[in-house]
Amino acid sequence: MALLYRHLRVHQIFGANTDVGKTVFATALVRASAHRGHNVLYLKPVSTGDIRDADDLYGCCVVSFAQSLQILITPWGSHVRRFTGGSSGRVEADCLFRYNEPVSPHLAVLRQGGSDQVSDGVLVNAIINRVSSYARNGSGAGHAYVETAGGVHSPTPSGSTQLDAYRPLFLPTILIGDPRLGGISSTISAYESLSLRGYIVDVLLLFREDYYQNWGYLTSYFAERGVSVTTIPPPPTRLSSREEDIASLEDYYKGISEPNPSGLSEVIAQLTGRHKSRLDELDSMPARTHTQIWWPFVQHSSVQSNSKSISVIDSAHKDHFSIYNDDHAPGSEETDSLLGYKFDGSASWWTQTLGHSNPTLTLAAARAAGRYGHVLFPQSTHLPALNLAETLLAGPGKGWASRVFYTDNGSTGMEVALKMALRAYTKKYPVEGDTKGDRAKRLGVLGLKGSYHGDTIGAMNACDAGDGVYTCEWHESKGFWFDPPSLKIREGRINITLPPSLREFASRSRVGEEDIMWVGARDSLNAVYDVERRLGTALAQVYRKFIEHSLGNIKTEIAALVLEPLVMGAGGMIFVDPLFQRVLVDVVRSRSPPTKPSTEGRWYGIPVIFDEVFVGTYRVGHQTASTVLGVHPDIAVYAKMLSGGLVPLATTLAKEEIFEAFVGKRKEQALLHGHSYTAYPVACEVANETLKQVEKLTESKGWGDARKKWTGEAVSEDPAKGTTRVWSFWDPEFVDELSKLELVKAVMTLGCVLAIEIDDGGRGYRSTAAREILDPIRDSDPSPTSPYSFGIHFRTLGDLGYFITNLNSERQVIAKVEKRILEVLRGP
Amino acid sequence: MALLYRHLRVHQIFGANTDVGKTVFATALVRASAHRGHNVLYLKPVSTGDIRDADDLYGCCVVSFAQSLQILITPWGSHVRRFTGGSSGRVEADCLFRYNEPVSPHLAVLRQGGSDQVSDGVLVNAIINRVSSYARNGSGAGHAYVETAGGVHSPTPSGSTQLDAYRPLFLPTILIGDPRLGGISSTISAYESLSLRGYIVDVLLLFREDYYQNWGYLTSYFAERGVSVTTIPPPPTRLSSREEDIASLEDYYKGISEPNPSGLSEVIAQLTGRHKSRLDELDSMPARTHTQIWWPFVQHSSVQSNSKSISVIDSAHKDHFSIYNDDHAPGSEETDSLLGYKFDGSASWWTQTLGHSNPTLTLAAARAAGRYGHVLFPQSTHLPALNLAETLLAGPGKGWASRVFYTDNGSTGMEVALKMALRAYTKKYPVEGDTKGDRAKRLGVLGLKGSYHGDTIGAMNACDAGDGVYTCEWHESKGFWFDPPSLKIREGRINITLPPSLREFASRSRVGEEDIMWVGARDSLNAVYDVERRLGTALAQVYRKFIEHSLGNIKTEIAALVLEPLVMGAGGMIFVDPLFQRVLVDVVRSRSPPTKPSTEGRWYGIPVIFDEVFVGTYRVGHQTASTVLGVHPDIAVYAKMLSGGLVPLATTLAKEEIFEAFVGKRKEQALLHGHSYTAYPVACEVANETLKQVEKLTESKGWGDARKKWTGEAVSEDPAKGTTRVWSFWDPEFVDELSKLELVKAVMTLGCVLAIEIDDGGRGYRSTAAREILDPIRDSDPSPTSPYSFGIHFRTLGDLGYFITNLNSERQVIAKVEKRILEVLRGP
Repeated sequence: MALLYRHLRVHQIFGANTDVGKTVFATALVRASAHRGHNVLYLKPVSTGDIRDADDLYGCCVVSFAQSLQILITPWGSHVRRFTGGSSGRVEADCLFRYNEPVSPHLAVLRQGGSDQVSDGVLVNAIINRVSSYARNGSGAGHAYVETAGGVHSPTPSGSTQLDAYRPLFLPTILIGDPRLGGISSTISAYESLSLRGYIVDVLLLFREDYYQNWGYLTSYFAERGVSVTTIPPPPTRLSSREEDIASLEDYYKGISEPNPSGLSEVIAQLTGRHKSRLDELDSMPARTHTQIWWPFVQHSSVQSNSKSISVIDSAHKDHFSIYNDDHAPGSEETDSLLGYKFDGSASWWTQTLGHSNPTLTLAAARAAGRYGHVLFPQSTHLPALNLAETLLAGPGKGWASRVFYTDNGSTGMEVALKMALRAYTKKYPVEGDTKGDRAKRLGVLGLKGSYHGDTIGAMNACDAGDGVYTCEWHESKGFWFDPPSLKIREGRINITLPPSLREFASRSRVGEEDIMWVGARDSLNAVYDVERRLGTALAQVYRKFIEHSLGNIKTEIAALVLEPLVMGAGGMIFVDPLFQRVLVDVVRSRSPPTKPSTEGRWYGIPVIFDEVFVGTYRVGHQTASTVLGVHPDIAVYAKMLSGGLVPLATTLAKEEIFEAFVGKRKEQALLHGHSYTAYPVACEVANETLKQVEKLTESKGWGDARKKWTGEAVSEDPAKGTTRVWSFWDPEFVDELSKLELVKAVMTLGCVLAIEIDDGGRGYRSTAAREILDPIRDSDPSPTSPYSFGIHFRTLGDLGYFITNLNSERQVIAKVEKRILEVLRGP
Repeated sequence: MALLYRHLRVHQIFGANTDVGKTVFATALVRASAHRGHNVLYLKPVSTGDIRDADDLYGCCVVSFAQSLQILITPWGSHVRRFTGGSSGRVEADCLFRYNEPVSPHLAVLRQGGSDQVSDGVLVNAIINRVSSYARNGSGAGHAYVETAGGVHSPTPSGSTQLDAYRPLFLPTILIGDPRLGGISSTISAYESLSLRGYIVDVLLLFREDYYQNWGYLTSYFAERGVSVTTIPPPPTRLSSREEDIASLEDYYKGISEPNPSGLSEVIAQLTGRHKSRLDELDSMPARTHTQIWWPFVQHSSVQSNSKSISVIDSAHKDHFSIYNDDHAPGSEETDSLLGYKFDGSASWWTQTLGHSNPTLTLAAARAAGRYGHVLFPQSTHLPALNLAETLLAGPGKGWASRVFYTDNGSTGMEVALKMALRAYTKKYPVEGDTKGDRAKRLGVLGLKGSYHGDTIGAMNACDAGDGVYTCEWHESKGFWFDPPSLKIREGRINITLPPSLREFASRSRVGEEDIMWVGARDSLNAVYDVERRLGTALAQVYRKFIEHSLGNIKTEIAALVLEPLVMGAGGMIFVDPLFQRVLVDVVRSRSPPTKPSTEGRWYGIPVIFDEVFVGTYRVGHQTASTVLGVHPDIAVYAKMLSGGLVPLATTLAKEEIFEAFVGKRKEQALLHGHSYTAYPVACEVANETLKQVEKLTESKGWGDARKKWTGEAVSEDPAKGTTRVWSFWDPEFVDELSKLELVKAVMTLGCVLAIEIDDGGRGYRSTAAREILDPIRDSDPSPTSPYSFGIHFRTLGDLGYFITNLNSERQVIAKVEKRILEVLRGP
């Protein structure tokens, strides 16, 4: 949980390096705040070095802690003294974790035998607890300073580095610059490392050392970057008499802490000003957004101009948003943090893969930006795009695709897929006399009702207009869409729901209910997804005949089959019976079967497009849905998770024969589709890094555990046995319990996705039942004042609520979400 | 120019901080290379500290230089000694710029009165000269080490920092880690700063210091990031006897340099391996790309599988690509760098703004990635998106727009604009009985022939199919397109070219040639662009009547006017007569003039869309083309340059009345268009930073100088006088001369854009005349072995070649491009 209070300004102090005067500055800031009459909390979360031995003036890691009313914090640490200024605030100081050996904390842990190991979670929660309880108690108005140890990237006790470990707190920072030779470089690099993690740097402070004059250079360097620099004189040189030494230091601190032009008094005003601006800005954001932003897919008349109606996202980290809300949740107090964590339940509109603000992905983006910026792609090449293409062809494209086309998002990727398929089709099946291309304009696609392929008009035209909700002026549906059978878990059992047309057809074919529903073990999700086995069932026969019969009646000339395999996301998280999709592919291909023995890179019947924009890249537990369906497409589109939930990117993969339809003598035979930022290096490099991290996850214990729960085995695919098993990050027992609740009509899950159909009396997409019933889920769990708590940000599709994890969400986080969902849906 | 040779491996040595042993490692690496029999060049470009005084073993900045065959390079610098190893390569050492004071070079310059100032260009070119000439001479096979001074970000003599100053060289790097307390942090931060500029880090080396054990932590940290870490023992402690001290140091160097498991011998093998892999990779890229990538807008049959046909972009910097080409340009030698600089003449498909790899934009991207990653946008808000919206509304949207809608690229931005306009139109002009929306599907737009609005099918449908080159199966042009009058400079004079239809209409209206062409001073570009003044001319009357007449004959119901103001880019860089566009806007609006006094945020007649994707954000010298036309649109789209040429982003701005057409009680009345990464923080933050930098440029001397040349004044807009003047980054004298060449049919320029129509005998878009005639421009200038030289990468549109600068391209770079264009087009 990020910490932000109206009555308490909290800053974290980072050093550009060790031994740059962090503790001296911290001491001076504490005193300067106190001198101005503010109560102060000084917190050193982790300290190394034995305080008993530490009486060196510049001994860098040792700090004092005291409960006394007025203290002098000195670098000696063990000295606790009152100071003699005028009206002073009350000062509290604390150190949370202490290690005796004066080395980096992770090493101190190791050298003490590892028993003092502290995880980042425990460390961060200890800080949250300490600051929260300070903020809540009577004297907790004023200023707080949290001093880090060593440099920005110095290791924590767990072995992570401070910048990453403290990131969930998202405290605005004070950077202490390095005044020594080389210090310009280390100060700028430290600033860049802070920036890479999104930290707000409010001020840079450093000693005014006059030989190397780093302050001069840094002042102008940082002025260009909007960071003000303040210098103070370095501490006095050490005197031989202890008493004189202390007196000299006291004079020094007085000089820089008390109101005085050469001291830190102005810095206190700046920090307080920045704190106020930040609050003012956050306060103003709902109203400014309300009058100037035009949101996608939002009916503006339903939105109020306040932070309850508009989510003010101040930052985000891993699975969570940090959301500003001055309207406190029930049970919380005015003195609680204004920033609350919320689980990003829609995975930020289905984009997230490795969580928000992943430093590895940030660095990948920066690396490509630093090496290339963007470079044009036609007839050129660069490593990020080439490497990504090769990874995709060796991954989801393995065994069928040989070409990768880049665009910017799923919708444009689908427009390209459609252009590819339509051209390939018209080239293979030419009609004489169609010189004006009128036939081409009328070609249709075959698909499923409820499908969605993006918001550009070409992609919309490949979808059924349906009930007329999702349409626009120029939208013209071109094709035929089957009403598909779907899968739902009800009362703990998996069900295949046939649409009326199919049900009627089945009964006319004299195929009984029992035959239809036979899928092996009725209760097992994996039996239903065992497509190969089910191909021999009576239901497969019904599907085949129904499809053939329907195709015979279609008037439109059909040029492509377009499917979202396994799950139709935007259409309402419809888990389509995979057997139906498989039979559909088999039927359309059988109309023009291969005539040559070698079928490499060729297509048959009509081109088959898989829109894997939502399901691809392990969203449903497999790299590609092809694995489950047991057939490859001729064209497939990947986007969303592909680029790690950081930047947009889409790829359209194709078979060589599709590509060849665009090869010819004339320029205009080429695929004339390209966006300026096609294959931009930043996204390609982020995607490369994402896929690398994801491959690691596939072998992780977390995935193994989840698979075992669902399938009994730690791996989901066994190429040797030819088996493929489906699984979910959501717990099977939780899903089972959920499906039996009264308010729940049905549940389904695969991979990251959990869909809950709320019993709304059949009002469907336009219904707001799910939103209303699930609404209490937004607030924190029943102990809202606990720093460990988080609320849940979710989205609904009509009567359906859904929740999507990251590929690296921790079980304990998912378990909390599960618990909260059950609590709310069980009802009072 | 980046330096890469097959026969010479060059590495740059950076230190995580000063005093981490860079020179010791450099010495050892030089010796280790020589021990393996390689010739070695050791280069210290900048050195500070007086070598006469520098006999401190760890004096960090002083290096030796010697011409002797075998040397011992020691940290003393002034000592030049043979060493006694076995078969050794020849070693050359050199220092290019030397300052006596042992402080940061920029400070040394200042303290010496500033007379030793060295610009980054001079510094980089000195290195290029030295390394190039070494590479070309007989002994120039082997290894080269270029040692930097201080830490990665230590200032250069010019006051820039090393990482930025040396970036054009793009040398692979060796990072020397910091073994001291705090050194884990400074080493990681230095690595991150290197990464932010795209540097390739081949190895991390550091002393094996056993108390703080940084090497242990760093080895595993960097293993995860693919960087191998090698340690060597620290140098021996200093001995009191000088002779013994030297002997002890010699022993030390022997131990780590000669083949031996604890030394650097393995590192030499690693570095050589990395060098070889890089060359192999570059060599393989054309073939791998040729078989796996599907390019946009490229006829693959015309591309060969080699680096002459496929541009292998290894990196890019400011105005230039660094392109790998093993097929050397005529006149160059085998021993020249395999990487050549080429001016990015198409601004990377019209995206570039501030040049490639701009560190400020990289850091902006990283900052947003580190703070948010991506966060969903519907009904939420975040600072980068909100700030950008406000900047746009106060900039190009000032005076008319009140809403900003985000999408991913120009094409999707235009689809949104069209959806907005069509809805606003049908809502204002409802037709009873049109329940099925058939009328809506048939609505058309008004536009100009040659217009282009993107490659998604909705955007294509707003364009004329024209000669059938740019079309696809589902493309259905909906609307009416005027053949527009255009502007061209021929023989030094600006001409208005009327299409036959308009010319005929004019002559029927008895408006003579002289009246048509009267634009004030015939020779002045600014007279033609003085739209307000020209509104009273006979030609304006002809335009008005022609448009009114044509509108009367259109059968399609027209729902919007869609214009690329001033220049139609993809259609062939057509500079449309702005008077025609202005009159067109005036005419369509006059059909339903305002009835109320207050016209704020209202639209009249039909909605007017400005597609400013190409021209906006100062491409043609003005923030928005509205300034020149003297009318605001009702909807406008900005993209490409908006996000600094780094990542894709589009914004659609709209008037409040347009927005209101989507406000209602039902969800489906909202604008149901949204991509997952809508308003992603990375792009918004990059755009914010871009616009900030661009605003600074508008006041720069460079812009002032260019404007003065074209208009006589340093500013182009004077709100007080109401004047707006057009100008160009290209020199007027150059344009004048160009327009008089025999091979040149016409020229036009505005802002960054220079378009040259080649006399191809009228073959038009399908012609390759421009490509063939301009081809020699690709190669370097006539002195190809000069390190200062660069070739030009350009694109053509049929018979037209075009060249686009950045907003911050330096005059001297543009002047070189101008010179080269003239040389090639003047002919032999």
